[in-house]
Amino acid sequence: MIFAVLGGDGRSAHLCRRLAQEGHEVRAFALEGAGELAGAYAVPGARECVTGADCVVLPMPVRTAQGALFAPQSSAVHGLGEVLGAIAGESLLLGGRVDKEAQAMAAQRGLHIHDYFAREALTVGNAAVTAECALEILMRETPATLWRSKVLVIGFGRIGKLLAQRLHGLGAHVTVSARKDEDKAWIDALGYAYADTRALGGTLGGYDIIVNTVPAPVLTETLLREVRADALLLDLASSPGGTDFAAAEKLGLRVIWALGLPGEAAPQRAAELIKESIFNILEERYGTA
Amino acid sequence: MIFAVLGGDGRSAHLCRRLAQEGHEVRAFALEGAGELAGAYAVPGARECVTGADCVVLPMPVRTAQGALFAPQSSAVHGLGEVLGAIAGESLLLGGRVDKEAQAMAAQRGLHIHDYFAREALTVGNAAVTAECALEILMRETPATLWRSKVLVIGFGRIGKLLAQRLHGLGAHVTVSARKDEDKAWIDALGYAYADTRALGGTLGGYDIIVNTVPAPVLTETLLREVRADALLLDLASSPGGTDFAAAEKLGLRVIWALGLPGEAAPQRAAELIKESIFNILEERYGTA
Amino acid sequence: MIFAVLGGDGRSAHLCRRLAQEGHEVRAFALEGAGELAGAYAVPGARECVTGADCVVLPMPVRTAQGALFAPQSSAVHGLGEVLGAIAGESLLLGGRVDKEAQAMAAQRGLHIHDYFAREALTVGNAAVTAECALEILMRETPATLWRSKVLVIGFGRIGKLLAQRLHGLGAHVTVSARKDEDKAWIDALGYAYADTRALGGTLGGYDIIVNTVPAPVLTETLLREVRADALLLDLASSPGGTDFAAAEKLGLRVIWALGLPGEAAPQRAAELIKESIFNILEERYGTA
Amino acid sequence: MIFAVLGGDGRSAHLCRRLAQEGHEVRAFALEGAGELAGAYAVPGARECVTGADCVVLPMPVRTAQGALFAPQSSAVHGLGEVLGAIAGESLLLGGRVDKEAQAMAAQRGLHIHDYFAREALTVGNAAVTAECALEILMRETPATLWRSKVLVIGFGRIGKLLAQRLHGLGAHVTVSARKDEDKAWIDALGYAYADTRALGGTLGGYDIIVNTVPAPVLTETLLREVRADALLLDLASSPGGTDFAAAEKLGLRVIWALGLPGEAAPQRAAELIKESIFNILEERYGTA
Repeated sequence: MIFAVLGGDGRSAHLCRRLAQEGHEVRAFALEGAGELAGAYAVPGARECVTGADCVVLPMPVRTAQGALFAPQSSAVHGLGEVLGAIAGESLLLGGRVDKEAQAMAAQRGLHIHDYFAREALTVGNAAVTAECALEILMRETPATLWRSKVLVIGFGRIGKLLAQRLHGLGAHVTVSARKDEDKAWIDALGYAYADTRALGGTLGGYDIIVNTVPAPVLTETLLREVRADALLLDLASSPGGTDFAAAEKLGLRVIWALGLPGEAAPQRAAELIKESIFNILEERYGTA
Repeated sequence: MIFAVLGGDGRSAHLCRRLAQEGHEVRAFALEGAGELAGAYAVPGARECVTGADCVVLPMPVRTAQGALFAPQSSAVHGLGEVLGAIAGESLLLGGRVDKEAQAMAAQRGLHIHDYFAREALTVGNAAVTAECALEILMRETPATLWRSKVLVIGFGRIGKLLAQRLHGLGAHVTVSARKDEDKAWIDALGYAYADTRALGGTLGGYDIIVNTVPAPVLTETLLREVRADALLLDLASSPGGTDFAAAEKLGLRVIWALGLPGEAAPQRAAELIKESIFNILEERYGTA
Repeated sequence: MIFAVLGGDGRSAHLCRRLAQEGHEVRAFALEGAGELAGAYAVPGARECVTGADCVVLPMPVRTAQGALFAPQSSAVHGLGEVLGAIAGESLLLGGRVDKEAQAMAAQRGLHIHDYFAREALTVGNAAVTAECALEILMRETPATLWRSKVLVIGFGRIGKLLAQRLHGLGAHVTVSARKDEDKAWIDALGYAYADTRALGGTLGGYDIIVNTVPAPVLTETLLREVRADALLLDLASSPGGTDFAAAEKLGLRVIWALGLPGEAAPQRAAELIKESIFNILEERYGTA
Repeated sequence: MIFAVLGGDGRSAHLCRRLAQEGHEVRAFALEGAGELAGAYAVPGARECVTGADCVVLPMPVRTAQGALFAPQSSAVHGLGEVLGAIAGESLLLGGRVDKEAQAMAAQRGLHIHDYFAREALTVGNAAVTAECALEILMRETPATLWRSKVLVIGFGRIGKLLAQRLHGLGAHVTVSARKDEDKAWIDALGYAYADTRALGGTLGGYDIIVNTVPAPVLTETLLREVRADALLLDLASSPGGTDFAAAEKLGLRVIWALGLPGEAAPQRAAELIKESIFNILEERYGTA
């Protein structure tokens, strides 16, 4: 198959390499700064890139706040409209985290952008990558080890589940907090200690490490006052996070707020997941890819 | 608190012991055959049992097909109506797997039976118990060990999830089959091999042990023909199971269909989960139990 | 290759099947009661069995207390001398748990019995099988589950190590007791709780399940007095065990003393390990087997 | 108790803090650059530090190649003889990795240095810390994740054992190579894949990550030629390592040689282990510390 990969960060570069490695023809545009693309070849224009391609892969996210193609590895700025204008109707068009604006721009040109990021499989895989990247941060930042540490994971969504499992495997003493009786039962069935997210007061002084995964104001100033001065706080919740960062700073606590970990700390694995998501879409559309 | 426990199997007996052990007054009715109740005391009549009780606990299930109180540990038969008639309105009334008929009978007397089994927490806990009981069966029935065995778990619901985790911990080579892309991603993220439940054909000859958890016709005669003669099949799916048992017998395969494992093989832990479910209900109703 | 398998229990029968399955010529003697041997063929006399065989496999143990070939699956009694007399010098002769007497009898005939059980690899494998068989017993005997149970494993030898790992994987709360500082460090590094075997007094009341693996008087009457009436005791130590069984009985405690588990509860896997041990010996002797 | 801590790196500083936290009087000398010592107090002279101390703690290692006290956190140089001369005979004297020279200098003054590093418990604990630090390096250096990676761990000593366990817990596909049949059996019993260290040829191209723990020339140029260009190599073996680093460089492979990880990447946990080792020595000497 012929793939056209336009823009994107390190993940797009790894995606090019991987697709080429698997024997596809891969044309890359607006990835000049990404280094050696091993088998994929760079083309200077969007039109050249997409013409005749079976599958056009836009980046994640598709566009910048200014409406340009998201292309941090390129020194030039390319309007998204210009790129979309070059695409023929018969190509399968894909993009990540496609917003309404971008979708509307595509529709104007009679195109539809399939969102490879909106698939549950990719979301779960990204959570696995995020969990491991979180471990890397914790290992780097603590002068102790996760082994023997008392760790609280707040929230039992995808990331909470996978992070708890991995911390447990590393020999940490893991407590997971949640709200639902059902989650309590799962936490118990999987062998971790349980805490009630609504009743953390009076317990936080017991932890060496606290990781929040809940995108709601959980770690308020009142609670943060209980945290030990030598504890480490990591917030993985999407904006605006779940920690009162101002209060934490005032109290002199060490807080790290980490977003977008897969693309930053494990772009190759993140690209592999995107590749799998793309092939799932291809398979649904055309049968065996 | 004063608890009245009426009827039930070994779980009800363990429930009595546990409640008594925790300092509650416990009256047992229709449990004569259950052995020593350690602190709980047996009373000869339903009325005597429930009068003044804060909490009346009916069994799981509440009634037999004939409409009597489910009381396999009692030699006498007690009409459910008779038992309900003895209960005063101020008692909290609880039962397990309450069917419409039983609920209607209660309503006629101005009562409502709260179902301690309908709570997700108990369902998850029961899945954990079922998973372990399944391991016990597999260990008993195989002349090999789970360690080193190639095991296929069909289905990634509650039991499938917890069974896969435990098999993995015992050193089995675990493949989990599911249908959804999302489940595939979870199976992968948790470190097991994945198979597509819709495409098991041509793979079944490779397994030493196959456990079905899906309540739908999965293991058809066509598939069963692939299973090795010395393989072990365990079906945990509720009636009518997921295996063509007639075909399996014809083919000379060893199949075990196991239902109601927690009550049978681990009644004490099952009773502990029921106790926790009851206290969750009490807590929601009265605040701290 | 031509294998002659003489006498033995269910493991010898599984060994025959496995060797035949792998394409070897297998002759079985004194295994009449072992059922279908699937590809191996039974021969009526020892001489017929061993003549021309590349490898002669005696059972584990080689002989009974009365000096006969250990052959519980045969209704006849065969003197070990008679069997050894039939063996030609060029065959490789193997046996399990070869005692001095048996070795001397072989030496008189110019033979040497290589002990497949004396190899560390088999010993470790057998410990893994024993650990799983111990889990099976515990699951069967407890009305609770290993999940959530407080388990003490006394001793951190091969079986203790592998049992602790598997219990941990099943969600038990595992404490391992040992004597050496080094073992304490390992127990800690692997994520279990530690207790000092010399200072168990005052702690035993806290366990639901206690498993002894130490072949020395550890669970004395004084200690047994602390054990809860509903606790379960399992002794895996070879004769005379580590428990004061008389005292335990007097105190009304439930104790199981289990010996020879691999051969009894998992003969197929045990036979597989013996097979591997035999091939290790062959490989050392002849290069690639 | 009164502790005198002299010289040392970040671990000594953490040791001071921890001892002070536990209520001991702690005097620190030659640790001026180590930051806040939280409860311990810095003293300007060695004599002042050790006078009246119950326990004098020398660093790890005790001395530099030039014969001075190992004190990287101090701008001044202190002769080891000068320090030893200040110590009275009744103090318990401890040090880490005490070489013959240092021990001889102590003996001249009628002193004996107990080596807290020569204890097996600390060695095992340090291996656990090293294993986790190795994970941190691997996570940082790979653009993929350990999850889903094919990892070869060469050697099944302390670090190999603990590293394999933790990699397995993170969802890596772990192969461990060793030489002894016994180790093969353990690797198998614990659920990892096995490879023979003497026969790695022809297999190395299959790994994403290779970690050597064997202090012998294992990864020769011939073998390194098989390693994929995008693979990651980590050598944890003490000098001279087990990798032909020159050949690796020539071949353009990415190799990291990491030594002394606990002190560098996890000084707090490393100090905790030293503290425990010191208290083990105290306990043996004086009974309950």
